[in-house]
Amino acid sequence: MGRKSDARERILEAGTALFQQRAYASIGVAEICTAAGVPKGSFYHFFPSKQALALEVINAHWIKQGAQWSGILTSSEPALDRLRKLFLATAEVQTTALKGTGSVTGCLFGNLALEVSAQDNPVRERLQQIFEEQIDLLEATVREGAAAGEFAGVDPRGAAKSIVAQIEGMVLFAKLFNDPGQLDALWQNSLALLGLQPAPAA
Amino acid sequence: MGRKSDARERILEAGTALFQQRAYASIGVAEICTAAGVPKGSFYHFFPSKQALALEVINAHWIKQGAQWSGILTSSEPALDRLRKLFLATAEVQTTALKGTGSVTGCLFGNLALEVSAQDNPVRERLQQIFEEQIDLLEATVREGAAAGEFAGVDPRGAAKSIVAQIEGMVLFAKLFNDPGQLDALWQNSLALLGLQPAPAA
Repeated sequence: MGRKSDARERILEAGTALFQQRAYASIGVAEICTAAGVPKGSFYHFFPSKQALALEVINAHWIKQGAQWSGILTSSEPALDRLRKLFLATAEVQTTALKGTGSVTGCLFGNLALEVSAQDNPVRERLQQIFEEQIDLLEATVREGAAAGEFAGVDPRGAAKSIVAQIEGMVLFAKLFNDPGQLDALWQNSLALLGLQPAPAA
Repeated sequence: MGRKSDARERILEAGTALFQQRAYASIGVAEICTAAGVPKGSFYHFFPSKQALALEVINAHWIKQGAQWSGILTSSEPALDRLRKLFLATAEVQTTALKGTGSVTGCLFGNLALEVSAQDNPVRERLQQIFEEQIDLLEATVREGAAAGEFAGVDPRGAAKSIVAQIEGMVLFAKLFNDPGQLDALWQNSLALLGLQPAPAA
């Protein structure tokens, strides 16, 4: 395919890569166009603004990540096995980023949440929805695990939220220390949050 | 005091306010000078660069927050009471920010960690040290609580780290949803992480 026909796709790819590597506020349309190899007019043909591109990048990222989360969390395996697989997949994403770019990129949604929440309402509202969807998926898993007797006395919504918060906190450490190994504690911590283990691992 | 004599202080204050409100990358020296009411030459008289100012802002913020954490976590009260007070103080900081600025500003260290870690080594290294110091303070508290029989079978370093991660994750939610009430779950979650409670609260 020629350059013109895949310009939109290349802008999306360049935007995704840049938004994962650097602060949203520091990235301009001109830089995105240079990275994508398209003229600026082409950008505005497809996207009315940088914010419109950001929303598409976020949606595309969630379609991919949400499908992965859904695939893992709605399987017929025991809930604890699904949780364990989710954490392994999360660590794998960061390990792959480290190998490919030299940096743990962290969570695109978390990065943007801490940067844009006070000033960019459409992006902020979309991020709120995505975190709610993550918590919904985990809540259903916790509920099924409780129903199957894997753990007891757990508030499913609270446990789900605390696990997502724990993921975000540990991914922050992984990014700050450029070390996906920081995520190894997720499993022990989540067992503790489900009342299954007295002590989280180091 | 005249304007000249407190210029350094006013630059620090303006930098702190701006770095807490918006992305580090989006804030230039000119904007900081305007907010501080000082000429640009005055900035470079005191700080060689924006990064140098950021390091001073981070240090000043940690001197203040570290003193608060120390005061709470090294008291002679039971370890669980100290933890509870730390969470109340954390929520109070965000509630105060919301009242003062209309926005939950989140954690200055967490905000910067997600933004600068891949590209700004001196800032990144300082943030790593500060998170290690936070974990150290909590580890000592957990160790004392375990020695006093408040909880048992806990790995103090792992528990301390998971509590800091939980704080960062819940502060992210507080900022994203502009709602300090998100932090209410910290207490129940930390009890669970210490093996004391089967279920985290919603």
